[in-house]
Amino acid sequence: MELSKRAREIQASPIRKLNPIANATKAKGIKVYHLNIGQPDLHTPPEMLKAYHEFSDKILAYGPSQGLDLYREGLVKYYKRCGIEVKPDDIIVTTAGSEAITFAMMVVCEVGDEIMVPEPFYTNYNGFATMAGINLVPITTYAEDGFALPDNSTIEAKITNKTRAIMLCNPGNPTGTVYSNDEIFRIAELAKRRGLFFISDEVYREFIYDGLTHTSVLDVPDFEENAILVDSVSKRYSACGARIGCIVSRNKELMASVLKFAQARLCPPTVDQLAANAGINLPDSYFEQIRTEYQSRRDLVMSELDKIPGIVCRKPEGAFYINVKLPIENSEDFIIWMLKEFQIDNETVMAAPGDGFYATEGLGKNELRLAYILCQEDLKKAMSIFAKGLATYQRIHK
Amino acid sequence: MELSKRAREIQASPIRKLNPIANATKAKGIKVYHLNIGQPDLHTPPEMLKAYHEFSDKILAYGPSQGLDLYREGLVKYYKRCGIEVKPDDIIVTTAGSEAITFAMMVVCEVGDEIMVPEPFYTNYNGFATMAGINLVPITTYAEDGFALPDNSTIEAKITNKTRAIMLCNPGNPTGTVYSNDEIFRIAELAKRRGLFFISDEVYREFIYDGLTHTSVLDVPDFEENAILVDSVSKRYSACGARIGCIVSRNKELMASVLKFAQARLCPPTVDQLAANAGINLPDSYFEQIRTEYQSRRDLVMSELDKIPGIVCRKPEGAFYINVKLPIENSEDFIIWMLKEFQIDNETVMAAPGDGFYATEGLGKNELRLAYILCQEDLKKAMSIFAKGLATYQRIHK
Repeated sequence: MELSKRAREIQASPIRKLNPIANATKAKGIKVYHLNIGQPDLHTPPEMLKAYHEFSDKILAYGPSQGLDLYREGLVKYYKRCGIEVKPDDIIVTTAGSEAITFAMMVVCEVGDEIMVPEPFYTNYNGFATMAGINLVPITTYAEDGFALPDNSTIEAKITNKTRAIMLCNPGNPTGTVYSNDEIFRIAELAKRRGLFFISDEVYREFIYDGLTHTSVLDVPDFEENAILVDSVSKRYSACGARIGCIVSRNKELMASVLKFAQARLCPPTVDQLAANAGINLPDSYFEQIRTEYQSRRDLVMSELDKIPGIVCRKPEGAFYINVKLPIENSEDFIIWMLKEFQIDNETVMAAPGDGFYATEGLGKNELRLAYILCQEDLKKAMSIFAKGLATYQRIHK
Repeated sequence: MELSKRAREIQASPIRKLNPIANATKAKGIKVYHLNIGQPDLHTPPEMLKAYHEFSDKILAYGPSQGLDLYREGLVKYYKRCGIEVKPDDIIVTTAGSEAITFAMMVVCEVGDEIMVPEPFYTNYNGFATMAGINLVPITTYAEDGFALPDNSTIEAKITNKTRAIMLCNPGNPTGTVYSNDEIFRIAELAKRRGLFFISDEVYREFIYDGLTHTSVLDVPDFEENAILVDSVSKRYSACGARIGCIVSRNKELMASVLKFAQARLCPPTVDQLAANAGINLPDSYFEQIRTEYQSRRDLVMSELDKIPGIVCRKPEGAFYINVKLPIENSEDFIIWMLKEFQIDNETVMAAPGDGFYATEGLGKNELRLAYILCQEDLKKAMSIFAKGLATYQRIHK
């Protein structure tokens, strides 16, 4: 029985595909520091967990397809605090950011259409694109200059009659790059002039360091028809298992179509929305504390990376990832070797291989993504093992 | 800004699209009996709600893409009790039945491929098909003979070089039809002989009346490569808001591809899986009690329908829907009229218009779906209002 082309071609998640190897390592009693996945170690705010504990309905019923009114009104408040004015009807709650991205791709692209994306990009965009039957057209960016966007003429050269949108993640996963106000506005200018949608994945909005500020696609004036925001509570509140995200746009026709996609799958999970809503009322100090912690972790990882000869990366300003170019040929081989062969005091480290974050064949093979989602003590140990492992691997593979 | 073709063409849910009209009716202080949506009124088992109350992890983390081991092992036990032998690796937990259907469609069909479906069928199959870019080829069945399947030669005549699968819902939504063991086996024989997948939506497995038994697609021997089961806890445990389903197949290559789709969206919601798992250990008496209640409801609705002249429907044997052919031209117009114009003691009734459950243009316009998901007292009142409303509507529209 032959499967579909998309079933045969869909990429295995580079973040998760090495899990069986890691599990075999753990089965031998070896501790694995997971720097491969963006699963924060911070506790989910107790206020959110309380929403599960206090759920008192007798029937766990379908909610509205667009999300619970309570939560959509909560999101309006949340965005207002971010300086973004939206109405409840500009928001459709989704089953995590994943579904928001899928809806965004499908609503703007017909099968065979194209979306331009700076690469390296969040690897699961590939999977969603395969499912939706669309093509991601990469705009290559480079570790050497901190994965900065090329100028608009370089981007415009990629536009074809199939191009429907430009999509980016800000702050970036896996790059940690924070796009400046100027960059967002110039991409918006390009999108508007060329009749493209601008899909902005802002799930790491609060994870910005060094006193920088975040520019949302919804901050751009006179851009209502083009701007699509995709968002999620997963990282923001360390609540990855809640699977609550949203898609936000002031384009009414677009949102009316998204609602029809949303109606087909009936509704996002009900109790999880109540938990997400409980996050809305957390004080600003919650994010300040997190920001301080992650900035310290980033500094720790960077200072360890700086000691490693031959590594290329610029200090990222946001999210909790660092995309590193290594002085070896094949980072996946290195990661597998670390899991299978290398331990210090019965401990090893797992990272995500870099090539899965690129759409251009052959790129990223000597890169990997590190997620600094462990406490500083563990992170220090993990980085030490990483550095020693890399040195040993280089010696062996010389 | 032009949206995609699929965004423009996706069907508005016939179950939900009239909600704004119903909401306006309710805003006038009129009570609406909702027979339009399959949201059971039965309480969710307290054992399941307890799983939310007792969730004690400090971090609401990502789970495995294939679902929690605990829950997949629970599902193995559940299916064993249904007489179906499967292993945990034959199961991938999904975000509701909706995602299971989407995955099934995408893994067997490339864009432009076809799946045959007996119509009328669960209307949201249309939405998923539009999103996946595939075509549903209807096999028309008729109210007059209880929506029985035509013989295999009629079905085979619909096969083209694009046909990849036959899909059905057993017991059927919106028909309530329960396919016999002979019917499932003859469809399986056809599928096997013609190299097609057989996707069986069995979310109403326990809702079978008159002492009938259920035949699963997984009951067919020597059919491992072809059989795909899609399932959900929504109706089974009156837990529609949990959004937990699964896809089950013994075809290892197929499940390896489904896992890649699943990895792209990371995981289904975590706490909701724990709730679903708590349902596994409910005693058989739970389903017996539900079956007795729904059978009584069905009998009540049927006895009320039998009194209405000109109505066509056969007594359904499963699920909790009745698809009724009315002696009028346009059932959607009738439903809207009921919501806007007709009340008895300030109460009215809402049903789901029938044409949305058909893929063949023009069919179902004089049909509607009633869901018997209210307590018998309310159902009796609702059916009385329905009958009087229909008589009045017929008088006016003569």
